[in-house]
Amino acid sequence: MENFSFCSPTQFVFGRDTENRVGDLALRHGAKRVLMVYGGGSAVRSGLVGRVEASLKAADIQCVTLSGIQPNPIDTKVREGIDLVRQNSLDFIIAVGGGSVVDTAKAIAMGAPYDGDFWDFFAGKAKPASALPVAVVLTIPAAGSEGSGDTVITNTNGLLKLGFGSQLLRPRFSVMNPDLTMTLPAYQTSCGVVDMLAHIMERYFTNTQNVEVTDRIAEGLMVSIVNTALKLVSQPNDYDARANIMWAGTVAHTGLCGVGREEDWVSHNMEHEISALYDVAHGAGLAVVFPAWMTYATSKNPTKIAQFARRVFAVAEADDTKAAQQGIAALKEFYGKIGMPTTFAQLGVEKPDIDQMVEKLHRTNGSPFGGYMKLTPTDTKAIYELMK
Amino acid sequence: MENFSFCSPTQFVFGRDTENRVGDLALRHGAKRVLMVYGGGSAVRSGLVGRVEASLKAADIQCVTLSGIQPNPIDTKVREGIDLVRQNSLDFIIAVGGGSVVDTAKAIAMGAPYDGDFWDFFAGKAKPASALPVAVVLTIPAAGSEGSGDTVITNTNGLLKLGFGSQLLRPRFSVMNPDLTMTLPAYQTSCGVVDMLAHIMERYFTNTQNVEVTDRIAEGLMVSIVNTALKLVSQPNDYDARANIMWAGTVAHTGLCGVGREEDWVSHNMEHEISALYDVAHGAGLAVVFPAWMTYATSKNPTKIAQFARRVFAVAEADDTKAAQQGIAALKEFYGKIGMPTTFAQLGVEKPDIDQMVEKLHRTNGSPFGGYMKLTPTDTKAIYELMK
Repeated sequence: MENFSFCSPTQFVFGRDTENRVGDLALRHGAKRVLMVYGGGSAVRSGLVGRVEASLKAADIQCVTLSGIQPNPIDTKVREGIDLVRQNSLDFIIAVGGGSVVDTAKAIAMGAPYDGDFWDFFAGKAKPASALPVAVVLTIPAAGSEGSGDTVITNTNGLLKLGFGSQLLRPRFSVMNPDLTMTLPAYQTSCGVVDMLAHIMERYFTNTQNVEVTDRIAEGLMVSIVNTALKLVSQPNDYDARANIMWAGTVAHTGLCGVGREEDWVSHNMEHEISALYDVAHGAGLAVVFPAWMTYATSKNPTKIAQFARRVFAVAEADDTKAAQQGIAALKEFYGKIGMPTTFAQLGVEKPDIDQMVEKLHRTNGSPFGGYMKLTPTDTKAIYELMK
Repeated sequence: MENFSFCSPTQFVFGRDTENRVGDLALRHGAKRVLMVYGGGSAVRSGLVGRVEASLKAADIQCVTLSGIQPNPIDTKVREGIDLVRQNSLDFIIAVGGGSVVDTAKAIAMGAPYDGDFWDFFAGKAKPASALPVAVVLTIPAAGSEGSGDTVITNTNGLLKLGFGSQLLRPRFSVMNPDLTMTLPAYQTSCGVVDMLAHIMERYFTNTQNVEVTDRIAEGLMVSIVNTALKLVSQPNDYDARANIMWAGTVAHTGLCGVGREEDWVSHNMEHEISALYDVAHGAGLAVVFPAWMTYATSKNPTKIAQFARRVFAVAEADDTKAAQQGIAALKEFYGKIGMPTTFAQLGVEKPDIDQMVEKLHRTNGSPFGGYMKLTPTDTKAIYELMK
């Protein structure tokens, strides 16, 4: 077990009708003038944006809005938000939506008090000295951004999709009402399931030995996600299933599943290259990447893949390589059952430009890179080829 | 799944040599004049107290000490600490030790700024409006107090052992070096193991349905504790095993294993009556109480006890009552293997005054009380009788 520092200070306010408490919570956390960030019209039509605005108004908190955040959120919306914060002297940012909205809010939060361009943080040219406080009203369980210090933004100039993380960006509070997720289409629900599983797997597939506690928590969480996701296929309106998936997505990404060990994140990086080029849903992309990465990993080091197979998918096989292969097959079958693709073709990418993805991947992350396996361009090309 | 609010803001700084970072951490958390609370001479002899003092001095932080905290910490030491804080205008409290020391520090922290007597909080006569910040250097993994807002103090006037909890009491940071636990005797190590398991079980045995995520995390954590505790019996100097047990004890009591459901805490309350009267180790007392409570619970409602048996001790039995009974037998066998008692006699209590315990238990907690089962004095007497 390796040394670590872990702090997840976010207050999670979870359950029915909790969005009506946003004003009170924001007041307690010192908000006076808020930027509310949200996505498309559905948050307005459902009445959610109105309820949050009413709650803020009842607490005497001023509110300016920034809407139109899209999946795979982009730098130009971040700059628009930074301008709004500066022009209106805002002191607090509330994201109403899913991961894209939260990630945009976080980028605005650290960009607003910074003299240079916010992209400096993503490009590794600067570190934020401060950030405005961020809070979340979550509508899509997937990214785990409501409980993490991470954000991922796509730079439209060059289609670079990069992540950045800092304790400064952990939300002060996150309001999580499972009822708000009831109307999520099955495809989007499943994309979220794949994403939260991936957040655990990136931390779980590691060479760090003797992390029994972290492993068992991660495995328990993965089992609960698989079970609940299958239930949601036939019972999408089951409140408890929606609630379990919503909470699982948060715990998957607070960092608890990573303490005491080296993490990986190669698969996320490989997926970012796909969704930056083809604008596919991040979760669907991960469903294609992960089995391919695991298949390649099995040929190099089957140990942890076999443990995953046995403890998450109850594979009984004694041989590590065979167990790992059966586990990967079970994972792909699970993805299939929840309507997720596992090949480029199923993802809608008929002719993937693998060479470009490999080139950008290593330009961003260096070579070799990776935790569980060190990957050169030859390796990552082979993994992308396995997705065909 | 029930509505909840969950916030675990403590910064956990975990690993070798981390006690040398106390001064820097305290400075970052605003400390200027510290009360350091610790137990007996071993913390001095081992050099730990000296290292923490040196670290504080290097950060230009003044330090006053309060020592002599015993297991089952008492009100008189709390009052002594409150006096020290007031006389020396201290602004921060650092507990160096195990649960008793941390609980004393927390009681001092809320008592110092309060006009009345601190016991008012435990007696339910008042609620703290504020508390001094508390931090921890943990030496005994067991109570989980390093990550919780809870404290348990025994009032020497009447031998009342009562608990109190508030978000105000969550430590600002907890420094956790597994090396500091290497010299813990086997008995004390095992007492800690029983206590941390109990912190999970009090939350796990619930009638709240459909808490799959919380259940699976709790079960994974329990499996890891059982596996690691058995390893420590033969390899008490294994750093990774010590590290896993130490971290497990924290996660067991942050509240994560309780979110979304009703908790119980009857077994803790029943044990408090034993250790208030006989001054036995809390963990050893819990090893006696829990199997008895579970046996009684199986006769009323075996469902969750059976789930525990199947998922934590891999019991294959299909019938719930039989599975539950096999699970209780496996738990008792586990306690035996780690040197823990499971009867009053093994605990060293030859003639338990059950009537007095029952009377005090219900005087404090009312009648009936309990989560998984509602217990009258007839029920609790029967459970105490099962411990013979």
